[in-house]
Amino acid sequence: MIGTLLIKCPDSKGVVASVAQLLFGFGCNIISSDQFSDIAADMFFQRVVFDYSDMLVGPGNTAVLERGITEVARKYSMDWRVSYSTKQKRMALLVSKLDHCLYDLLIRVENGEMENCTIPIILSNHPDLEVVAKRFNIPYRHLPITPKDAASKAAQEAAIEGILEEEGINLIVLARYMQIFSKDFCDRHWRHTINIHHSFLPAFEGARPYHRAHERGVKVIGATAHYATSDLDCGPIIAQDVTHVSHRDAVPDMVRKGRDLERTVLAKAVRWHLQDRIIVHDNRTVLFE
Amino acid sequence: MIGTLLIKCPDSKGVVASVAQLLFGFGCNIISSDQFSDIAADMFFQRVVFDYSDMLVGPGNTAVLERGITEVARKYSMDWRVSYSTKQKRMALLVSKLDHCLYDLLIRVENGEMENCTIPIILSNHPDLEVVAKRFNIPYRHLPITPKDAASKAAQEAAIEGILEEEGINLIVLARYMQIFSKDFCDRHWRHTINIHHSFLPAFEGARPYHRAHERGVKVIGATAHYATSDLDCGPIIAQDVTHVSHRDAVPDMVRKGRDLERTVLAKAVRWHLQDRIIVHDNRTVLFE
Amino acid sequence: MIGTLLIKCPDSKGVVASVAQLLFGFGCNIISSDQFSDIAADMFFQRVVFDYSDMLVGPGNTAVLERGITEVARKYSMDWRVSYSTKQKRMALLVSKLDHCLYDLLIRVENGEMENCTIPIILSNHPDLEVVAKRFNIPYRHLPITPKDAASKAAQEAAIEGILEEEGINLIVLARYMQIFSKDFCDRHWRHTINIHHSFLPAFEGARPYHRAHERGVKVIGATAHYATSDLDCGPIIAQDVTHVSHRDAVPDMVRKGRDLERTVLAKAVRWHLQDRIIVHDNRTVLFE
Amino acid sequence: MIGTLLIKCPDSKGVVASVAQLLFGFGCNIISSDQFSDIAADMFFQRVVFDYSDMLVGPGNTAVLERGITEVARKYSMDWRVSYSTKQKRMALLVSKLDHCLYDLLIRVENGEMENCTIPIILSNHPDLEVVAKRFNIPYRHLPITPKDAASKAAQEAAIEGILEEEGINLIVLARYMQIFSKDFCDRHWRHTINIHHSFLPAFEGARPYHRAHERGVKVIGATAHYATSDLDCGPIIAQDVTHVSHRDAVPDMVRKGRDLERTVLAKAVRWHLQDRIIVHDNRTVLFE
Repeated sequence: MIGTLLIKCPDSKGVVASVAQLLFGFGCNIISSDQFSDIAADMFFQRVVFDYSDMLVGPGNTAVLERGITEVARKYSMDWRVSYSTKQKRMALLVSKLDHCLYDLLIRVENGEMENCTIPIILSNHPDLEVVAKRFNIPYRHLPITPKDAASKAAQEAAIEGILEEEGINLIVLARYMQIFSKDFCDRHWRHTINIHHSFLPAFEGARPYHRAHERGVKVIGATAHYATSDLDCGPIIAQDVTHVSHRDAVPDMVRKGRDLERTVLAKAVRWHLQDRIIVHDNRTVLFE
Repeated sequence: MIGTLLIKCPDSKGVVASVAQLLFGFGCNIISSDQFSDIAADMFFQRVVFDYSDMLVGPGNTAVLERGITEVARKYSMDWRVSYSTKQKRMALLVSKLDHCLYDLLIRVENGEMENCTIPIILSNHPDLEVVAKRFNIPYRHLPITPKDAASKAAQEAAIEGILEEEGINLIVLARYMQIFSKDFCDRHWRHTINIHHSFLPAFEGARPYHRAHERGVKVIGATAHYATSDLDCGPIIAQDVTHVSHRDAVPDMVRKGRDLERTVLAKAVRWHLQDRIIVHDNRTVLFE
Repeated sequence: MIGTLLIKCPDSKGVVASVAQLLFGFGCNIISSDQFSDIAADMFFQRVVFDYSDMLVGPGNTAVLERGITEVARKYSMDWRVSYSTKQKRMALLVSKLDHCLYDLLIRVENGEMENCTIPIILSNHPDLEVVAKRFNIPYRHLPITPKDAASKAAQEAAIEGILEEEGINLIVLARYMQIFSKDFCDRHWRHTINIHHSFLPAFEGARPYHRAHERGVKVIGATAHYATSDLDCGPIIAQDVTHVSHRDAVPDMVRKGRDLERTVLAKAVRWHLQDRIIVHDNRTVLFE
Repeated sequence: MIGTLLIKCPDSKGVVASVAQLLFGFGCNIISSDQFSDIAADMFFQRVVFDYSDMLVGPGNTAVLERGITEVARKYSMDWRVSYSTKQKRMALLVSKLDHCLYDLLIRVENGEMENCTIPIILSNHPDLEVVAKRFNIPYRHLPITPKDAASKAAQEAAIEGILEEEGINLIVLARYMQIFSKDFCDRHWRHTINIHHSFLPAFEGARPYHRAHERGVKVIGATAHYATSDLDCGPIIAQDVTHVSHRDAVPDMVRKGRDLERTVLAKAVRWHLQDRIIVHDNRTVLFE
């Protein structure tokens, strides 16, 4: 039984020792520990993986452990969160009409590449990809939007939120979902919502980035996975990659080459999130690979 | 004796044959030929390398050959230019205080990596890098600017232009030269002025790109070599590359990692320009590698 | 109606003109032409794409055109082959138990990324991946081998060859097919058999390359797509790519990271082959991208 | 005053705490700590950076601290070494005729990119690069070898070893030094001797790797920095990188492209070594970046 603790606090000498002592005191074994001090920001970040099978208060009693963490956290003004291997992560995939990221995540989950997670639901504003969902035996919900009808959009968003709640979702993946959520929705969910944008941000935020990349005559195109805050394409970046293009690459070639980038970049980000490797600070991510 | 002909014209069936016929007619041998049709723009681009040692009108009589090309060009509404291996390219390096791109180009020229070119002059608004110029026995001119004095800036620019003229310069390389030229200067010279910008454009145009990259929390940093038009950092892109960074990379780490990018990207662009491999169209470059 | 002509011959001045004249003479329009002279080997390579819709002898009469090409070829000692857009390529996928390359190719074909091809059959020495084939409605044949029984292996190979014949297959893709064919089979089929090997060849030819890469302590791992000659993992290389690894990557991590490489490298090679972009010479490939 | 402690030992629970306690006990402040557990090998690795300015026994008394470390090390069967910022590293560069790696390291040291090191001597079996050494005001010793004269080779090696001793060298960099040292020399020095090999090892060990890469028709070429053990090109790999090549790249193009790889890969390895970021185990390197 494995726990993962993520910590963020103002830099201070005793933190590492206090956390270690706490876990040892409870009978937990530290398996690995990574830390990072951001000297400019005077902040400290840590990821501690521990085995709590032999916890003195019993492995089922993680609430007591968390009370202990709360005590230490207060002392050091820590932000923290902990997750347990006994609790499988539940990931919802949101898609529109493009299937490459959807397929990619379904296959990786099927292959066991994404540890300890399940996909209870695929949501879409279009019916097109139900056929893909069926191949992998995953429920698919088509929640259409009437174009230019704000009420329809709000109702659809409410329906989505209802389903996420119902299904106990703790990670929302926008796998080329071509709709923008309301500020309220984003504010509630951005910490567990990952979007893939088809450019190397901050270049080409917003619509049609490959067209704009072609027009600008760039020699690399990219993809960026980020947390989807209410500030469009401006959330904390988790992963980015690029590939070279030349004058021979017309927009459709960029789209095709970009697909390979999008799916690997998104998969990386999702995997790191599922493994509790990411801490957000100040619109940046600390990533314990 | 090798000539290189670059052609750009509206796409049309007979172009390749007409150019080939013309060169054969003059007794030139085509060594290599690369072409590209931009279907969306309905434009045709070609680079022809030919041996004119046995030209019927005599190898010294390239003016006659060029009259022939002019005839063909009129028929097809061609833009064209030709260069000859007998005429060495003369490259001026403009620098401020950073030496990595300067060293890099000096070494590559010394090594013979940049074919058929010489560096008659290094120009700078600071005296710092004269020591580097001396090591390679290249004249260095210090042309200072009084900060916030527009007249001083204009006078310095005029002095630079005078020297470029005097030295018969046909390629200006801004090797981390931290000054911006006037619109007039750019309009006159951008076709043979290459700048290196320390970001993957169009992200982080303008000042302090590494600082802004760090603030945005990007996971890749880049460098871009482009022709320096009067629209700052918006000229036609010649070469770009990126390298991965993580949360562990503070601004000075980005600066350090970026140096390696800047010098290789700039060197590529300069090399391609010197070998007449670049055609600009519509703020984009066609690059015959 | 589009034809693609691939040519290889000793370097000689008149080739380009002769081929162009021939095609024009038949009323074909050259759409694009790429050429390469290997100076060290004194060889010339060309790929010509032409429209033969308005061929004077009628577009159905490609046999006449080919007689014309044969004439020119004799003169220049050319190796050549031509393919026509009217004839869809038929690709067989051979797999064992790993599904990532199989899925990848199925999805790319479904997406239309692999132009003008169909997959009539998937063959395997194991039953495991029939479920994947079913999802994409493609016939799957399980042709088992009794381990250490040479006769069983020979019989299975004969069965495969029979099916390939029957299905009119013109590209065999070994998508992580973990069996080695006989020398005779390879000699007959290598020109249209692409294998993906999970290392950057020539390093780690043969079995268990990720284990050996880990043991050697390399900092990059790779994948190589190549034509499968009878000399194991020594055939002409079509595409290669690598990714960085660190001491933190144990063998299973390399296997996971390698999957992404294998599928993109294999897909590239298959795409280039299907588009007739590859000419083999002297165990190397000339690749008109 | 900063110390860096590198530790390697069989994995065991109390190590981290014991090391931390020891340093705290002496009044040292831990600035950063990185660790890695190799589960397959059951080994533990750690890099601890600490400030010993306020050490209780006085910052000059590191010998006492080291006695303390020895005690802890005995308990855990640790291999360890410690270095101090007060002691500048002394690096000898060995070269033959190629100057790109030499220039690169000289410039990086001049720029302050290689912290806390000096280059007291450049050694060569050829006189050619003395001109480069002079430009950077570094003593150059020409120690020729009579080809095919074993005694001359042995004498030259002895001379080199004498100079290294005399100059108090603690890092030997073979910056394209085209000679092979004797087994005895390697056995004595490999832990502080870094070589750059111009291929992605283990492919193309030994002579003329670019020629062999061209002959094999690879689509990537690489460079590898490694510790130079007596087993030629088989020592622990520190850094590797590759770049793409095509059929258009003849051997001289590979040589040119390879130069950029060689210098950046070598510089990385040298930097990591100088910063005490590398631990060797079982012919592999653990690299605390």
